[in-house]
Amino acid sequence: MKTAKIRLYVEHPLGQGQTVPLDRAQAHYLFGVMRLGHGDAVLLFNGQDGEWRSEVVEKGKRGGVLSCVEQSAPQRDPPDLWLLFAPIKKARTDFIVEKAAEMGAARILPVQTDFTNSERIRQDRLQTHAIEAAEQCGGTFVPEVAPLERLDKVLNDWPEGRHLMFCDETLAGGAFVLPDRFSGQSWAILIGPEGGFSEAERNRIAAMDGAHPVALGPRILRADTAVVAAITVWQAQLGDWL
Amino acid sequence: MKTAKIRLYVEHPLGQGQTVPLDRAQAHYLFGVMRLGHGDAVLLFNGQDGEWRSEVVEKGKRGGVLSCVEQSAPQRDPPDLWLLFAPIKKARTDFIVEKAAEMGAARILPVQTDFTNSERIRQDRLQTHAIEAAEQCGGTFVPEVAPLERLDKVLNDWPEGRHLMFCDETLAGGAFVLPDRFSGQSWAILIGPEGGFSEAERNRIAAMDGAHPVALGPRILRADTAVVAAITVWQAQLGDWL
Repeated sequence: MKTAKIRLYVEHPLGQGQTVPLDRAQAHYLFGVMRLGHGDAVLLFNGQDGEWRSEVVEKGKRGGVLSCVEQSAPQRDPPDLWLLFAPIKKARTDFIVEKAAEMGAARILPVQTDFTNSERIRQDRLQTHAIEAAEQCGGTFVPEVAPLERLDKVLNDWPEGRHLMFCDETLAGGAFVLPDRFSGQSWAILIGPEGGFSEAERNRIAAMDGAHPVALGPRILRADTAVVAAITVWQAQLGDWL
Repeated sequence: MKTAKIRLYVEHPLGQGQTVPLDRAQAHYLFGVMRLGHGDAVLLFNGQDGEWRSEVVEKGKRGGVLSCVEQSAPQRDPPDLWLLFAPIKKARTDFIVEKAAEMGAARILPVQTDFTNSERIRQDRLQTHAIEAAEQCGGTFVPEVAPLERLDKVLNDWPEGRHLMFCDETLAGGAFVLPDRFSGQSWAILIGPEGGFSEAERNRIAAMDGAHPVALGPRILRADTAVVAAITVWQAQLGDWL
């Protein structure tokens, strides 16, 4: 048996001896592209049951079956961190979702702010990016990509007790503090669009109980850079990098 | 006069009353694309003299002249931080250079490691990306992009006293420490290619005096993500985000 290097996300329970049917696209990828044969290994995860080493037990052009042999990694969920971001140009929005999944965000919420140009997103496409990022980075968890909502609606329904790390580019060069007494609690990071937030949004957020405005250094970062930088700061100070 | 929002990097001295000639490409951008007229404002920087608000005093199809009115921001150099990275696919290499410039690296060194696929880079193109990133992010400094060199050669010529933050993906999930007694000193960050470093490279670096192996969290990050994450960690702990 070859060493298992291929990681595949499946929507199916995983466990000792569990068989997992493949759909047409998965069969094409494993047998057509990657040229796997009977007995070859695939690492499976479903976002809940950890990672399982499986073997090919049936292969066909339109499907196939894998069988779980042993758990190769335990389930590991990220900390309770949401990422709220304003969609920007397509390639950079894809990038933001990929990076958030890699960096360990638990939920990704595209939000429409006063200065957001984008009126729609392809939620299914972004969810696929999140899955591919998890396959690539060795994670066992896939963050959900929520539908696009207006920021003011999201803030109206804000869950009690969830802190908000508000990355406000008007603070560039200013303070940069996350109070570590809030470690282990529920958090969200909010990254604005190019052009930042409106005065109304800024006031609204400042008035929220759990809002923590932070600066990400002395330079103005692009939104996609700011996402990676903000999650790094959060993970390193309050999250699972400690 | 319109509010100056256009930032332009020029290779020309800047100072009170200084006139700055425009080349054909710059004239096309300012007058053809951005439709500026006489008296309109442009923010200029050259990497040395800070940022200057200038006005259009001559415009033409093939050139033009700007005149510096007042310094709008002081020169601000980044900390003495080099980024060493192994070139990967084109789009992601472009991205790495853009992000390093935005995040405040002082010098960018593409290096060929044992597992690097890329044999060449377009140094001029990457330098242009660094300039555009500086124009975009409000920086007054443009990091130099060095020619591609073999990592072992770079390490042979390593400057005495320069620390090396060695981002080793085999440490994922392990320690994550930068000793802050080395703040204010010369540093470099080394990010490997997909596939990581060879055993020989790992041993070579471990034996270096100023090498500090670090882990960037429990997940394996793509090289481009790792660049932003590593510079964030460094800037936040030892650099100019403090």
